[in-house]
Amino acid sequence: MSDYPLLSSVHGPAELKALNLEQLEQLAAELRRCICDQISRTGGHFASNLGIVELTLALHYVFDFASDRLVFDVGHQCYPHKLVTGRQDLFAKLKLKGGMAGFPDPAESDYDLFSVGHAGASISTAVGLARGDAAMSAGGRRVVAVIGDSSIVNGLAMEGLNNAGTLHRQLLVVLNDNGMAIAQPQGAMAQYFDRVRVSPTFGEVKKRGKEIIERLPGGSIIEDLYHRGSEMLRSAIASDHLFEHMGIACLGPIDGHDLRTLIDLFNEVKHIERPILIHAKTIKGKGYERAEGDPFRFHAPGPDKFITSDCAIEKKPKGKSFTQAYAEAMIDLMGRDDKIHAITAAMPDGTGLDKVEPHFRGRVIDCGLAEGHGMAMAAGMARSGLKPFFAVYSTFSQRAFDQVFQEVCLQHLPVRVCMDRAGYVGGDGAPMHGFADIALYRLFPDAVVMAASDEPNLRAALEFMRGYDKQASFVRYPRDVVPAEPIFRQVPPFEPGKAVLMRRSRTEQPDLAILAYGYPVYAADDAMRNQLQPQGYDIALYDARFAKPLDIDLVADLLERSIPILTIEDHGHAGGFGSAVLEAANQRGLDTRLIHRHAMPETWFRHDSRAGQLADAGLDAPGIARKVRSVLDGSIKPAIDVRVRVDQPNADARV
Amino acid sequence: MSDYPLLSSVHGPAELKALNLEQLEQLAAELRRCICDQISRTGGHFASNLGIVELTLALHYVFDFASDRLVFDVGHQCYPHKLVTGRQDLFAKLKLKGGMAGFPDPAESDYDLFSVGHAGASISTAVGLARGDAAMSAGGRRVVAVIGDSSIVNGLAMEGLNNAGTLHRQLLVVLNDNGMAIAQPQGAMAQYFDRVRVSPTFGEVKKRGKEIIERLPGGSIIEDLYHRGSEMLRSAIASDHLFEHMGIACLGPIDGHDLRTLIDLFNEVKHIERPILIHAKTIKGKGYERAEGDPFRFHAPGPDKFITSDCAIEKKPKGKSFTQAYAEAMIDLMGRDDKIHAITAAMPDGTGLDKVEPHFRGRVIDCGLAEGHGMAMAAGMARSGLKPFFAVYSTFSQRAFDQVFQEVCLQHLPVRVCMDRAGYVGGDGAPMHGFADIALYRLFPDAVVMAASDEPNLRAALEFMRGYDKQASFVRYPRDVVPAEPIFRQVPPFEPGKAVLMRRSRTEQPDLAILAYGYPVYAADDAMRNQLQPQGYDIALYDARFAKPLDIDLVADLLERSIPILTIEDHGHAGGFGSAVLEAANQRGLDTRLIHRHAMPETWFRHDSRAGQLADAGLDAPGIARKVRSVLDGSIKPAIDVRVRVDQPNADARV
Repeated sequence: MSDYPLLSSVHGPAELKALNLEQLEQLAAELRRCICDQISRTGGHFASNLGIVELTLALHYVFDFASDRLVFDVGHQCYPHKLVTGRQDLFAKLKLKGGMAGFPDPAESDYDLFSVGHAGASISTAVGLARGDAAMSAGGRRVVAVIGDSSIVNGLAMEGLNNAGTLHRQLLVVLNDNGMAIAQPQGAMAQYFDRVRVSPTFGEVKKRGKEIIERLPGGSIIEDLYHRGSEMLRSAIASDHLFEHMGIACLGPIDGHDLRTLIDLFNEVKHIERPILIHAKTIKGKGYERAEGDPFRFHAPGPDKFITSDCAIEKKPKGKSFTQAYAEAMIDLMGRDDKIHAITAAMPDGTGLDKVEPHFRGRVIDCGLAEGHGMAMAAGMARSGLKPFFAVYSTFSQRAFDQVFQEVCLQHLPVRVCMDRAGYVGGDGAPMHGFADIALYRLFPDAVVMAASDEPNLRAALEFMRGYDKQASFVRYPRDVVPAEPIFRQVPPFEPGKAVLMRRSRTEQPDLAILAYGYPVYAADDAMRNQLQPQGYDIALYDARFAKPLDIDLVADLLERSIPILTIEDHGHAGGFGSAVLEAANQRGLDTRLIHRHAMPETWFRHDSRAGQLADAGLDAPGIARKVRSVLDGSIKPAIDVRVRVDQPNADARV
Repeated sequence: MSDYPLLSSVHGPAELKALNLEQLEQLAAELRRCICDQISRTGGHFASNLGIVELTLALHYVFDFASDRLVFDVGHQCYPHKLVTGRQDLFAKLKLKGGMAGFPDPAESDYDLFSVGHAGASISTAVGLARGDAAMSAGGRRVVAVIGDSSIVNGLAMEGLNNAGTLHRQLLVVLNDNGMAIAQPQGAMAQYFDRVRVSPTFGEVKKRGKEIIERLPGGSIIEDLYHRGSEMLRSAIASDHLFEHMGIACLGPIDGHDLRTLIDLFNEVKHIERPILIHAKTIKGKGYERAEGDPFRFHAPGPDKFITSDCAIEKKPKGKSFTQAYAEAMIDLMGRDDKIHAITAAMPDGTGLDKVEPHFRGRVIDCGLAEGHGMAMAAGMARSGLKPFFAVYSTFSQRAFDQVFQEVCLQHLPVRVCMDRAGYVGGDGAPMHGFADIALYRLFPDAVVMAASDEPNLRAALEFMRGYDKQASFVRYPRDVVPAEPIFRQVPPFEPGKAVLMRRSRTEQPDLAILAYGYPVYAADDAMRNQLQPQGYDIALYDARFAKPLDIDLVADLLERSIPILTIEDHGHAGGFGSAVLEAANQRGLDTRLIHRHAMPETWFRHDSRAGQLADAGLDAPGIARKVRSVLDGSIKPAIDVRVRVDQPNADARV
């Protein structure tokens, strides 16, 4: 790291604390350059990390996070923090196996307290840490939560603030307000932040400071401070801040890139034994000209978005993503059915709805980082007769489970939930895998739970959902590219509880039938054609399509003919597709010994490429081939020549 | 209903609208009397319904909810609404089968739009209805959400408000602020409401009205109204209301029992094409002297809390509740281990922690109606080294699923989740059954998922949780009484993945082994001893204790000895305990045809007594006996006399 002389000498906060202000400014510049250089090579969260450089340095300068507690919300803005806490060596392999996690990660450093990727919880966990440290007689440990303006409008964050307000001890919430978040922030609070941003706050509010302080519950400490404190602090006291109503003393907005002010302010407030929020205005992409101009695009760019890109490390497969295919399918669908409205919770880019919105102004709603609200709102829209399609990452859909239960399924309202990022997600790692959705949504009567294996099947699934009005319906698809050459360009319509034969076996009595749930169909196909069939195995491949209702007739037919079944899914073992098959077969009184399940191992897969994770899980083609062989080598495998060969497909198109 | 002459003449809102103010006052009085009379006989939600009488009448007087949309949050304050929308006949059987649901219920009346029992979603669903009606060219339908001061601090409600603020059409939120909610409201916003309550608002704020209006985004309509509107309205405009920052025009606080003011105000605002919140102060228990004095106790009293009680209809079983047993166990545990802190989300009474709190001031935290916050806070406390026990209803734990995932299990933090109201809950019906928890929490690596069948087992489970620090642990128990005579007064410690033999079979080769998960052990025991054994069936009964890790050795042992297994659980079929048994047996390559699963049918069970629901589900003793017979009559049942009788238990205490 000789390109960054000062940064490379900082192995931990101790060295940072020894610097003077001028050196800190230099360190900030080096951090920015280091992040630009690195992300131009590997991709990663970019603009948000450039924006938080000075805040991070000032926090480490004033607090001692070897003992004090630092909690990041969401956490994708943690690179500067990681770079000054001894992890520069890991940065070259950002989000890759053995390299630096893209989110805070306690396995990486004691300076990271929580592995997070979902938003909104930082204030609540900070409140818990504050209560815990107090009870454990470790009250001297100060607690800081850093949260962005997009996350703070999440209901969980607001619950946290509301309860932080009752805490009778130090707790600092730093609101990193870059006015941008991942997409344009939604909701009225974002408008409020905007108004705060444009008003000339520093001078104007000074004269009202006293009045505000008196209105705060238990405001005496701040009031003392006001009388005793520095001019700087007094002038920083914002009037009439939203969160003051929640009992939080709010200071700011201040310039989040002014190191001296930040350090002075943190030094002032760190001794105050009550919750304080400091509202810092930052510029996303600060210091990188192109990102400042277009921070939306530069939220988490792949290396191809940089001119300087030369050695992308996480190779993404080339081709059309499922996300893009979903967007195109929605454009088609919404053009044909004006009752369809689409919803995203702050992920228009990630879900593809940003491509849809220009075609259907007013019919694509971004409800902000509020999945629970989005789901309940979708229920209301369905109740009015609309056909809401909620596009959401599988992992984030978990945040709305109770609304899926009460507002949607208990009412039998046909909300359509389209889950991107099902299965392994690659570099974002453990906080983001979609491993739970099948188990969650199978619980509800009449719910239809589906997976799409390729683009024609995704389109067919969405078309089915358009027409299914008895109950909620769900479809999942991975963070991957759609197969460039789908097995069938034309697929039959989705019919509840009907699997589809994708590859016929050579004989009427194959060695095995694979029931793959969604995208693993293609890894299974690869395994069959390139490994298993050349080795003489005869296999039939089905796209299961449905986890609920299940194609129990197919399962029964196979079992009754003594054909072993291998279920494959990129979902957890417990309660997933394979379990649904077991349950249904058991319900029919069938012997399930011929059923074998292949799913995600029950462990947290850390950051790596998605291909690497699939390989580790044995869910890639070689892994599936190994699994098939291990299944079949344990059974009696008839010699190929004794089997009946059929040249014509059998009538019912099964096996 | 001749005791209520006016009320009995009101069969729907049309008759109500024909009344004059004086008659409406009389109707209010009759409604109060009717509710007092009824609940003194049957129990039910009481004080909240007395508090909302005038608000309900005024809403129905001004709006036309045959076309307009009325959404209740939580919904237990819906009795007056139901009594004026044609459902007086159902009231005598409140919360009983065939009678009136305790919550809004679309199956009962078109005037109920959502069946709800969980809090916080009303504003979001109202936003969805508003968007949907606008898109469906039904924008003339006005939308009203009614929410209490306790629910509005839930994160979901705050997300709803934040997004309502961006709606460019009519939407009315009525904040029914009785300053009480179910328990004492927690959090800083409650303190804020308190301050608003005591300030002399009406006159004082008038002079500031103009200023506030100008600060509101898009405030021109309200500003017009201010100039054109009545003196009453102008004076009702509150200054500096919390939610104005969310872009909502806030009016009030006003007197929620002043019918004329309410009607005038609703008439004024119903034409305004922007979101408005009316903050109405009401008195919980209004009109019933005892309830006004102690609304906490009279939130949802059983009939025994009334002197006039004479004919309680929903007979509750006599004895100590699991809730009480939990409270006693926690008092014992917390006395022995000062790292244990207990948490409730606004349910100190329902969870029993109100009994615990006086013994351990400062170690029992009520975080308000914010399960997500409570779970994340618990994670923070665990991270600090405390042993947090979160006492929560099974159904409400769903609201924190994503925090259980990310903040707790992904971090391997030993948060202890104690789930009351597992299984059927009786009169509260479909929104409240605990049918999903096993499936949800089995998903996480190293999580321990347990059920407690009786008081000794509950104590043993909690003791186990105290010591388990690898990961989160979960225990469930029902809304029922603990068996007065537990099968064992002393039970062995909980050992992960070890079931316990509760009733030995007569022979070494019983006809069947029952693996009951938690409380159903006792219904199974009843079925065995009183029905099956007298009929000659020989059965062994196990308390499974663990759904994860599972006692696969026991399952394997039974299956290898060709002993059929019946799993019993009061949880949904999909992904529950029985599924865990199937998965584990399948993993071991065992034939699962001898495994039979008995669980909640996949349908929404409406309000009824818990006993009635268990009977309908076949999960009571007769149902279990029927199930056992149907299982065994389908198999070859050896004659009793050919079996080996054993007088001594076998060494390993199995069967």
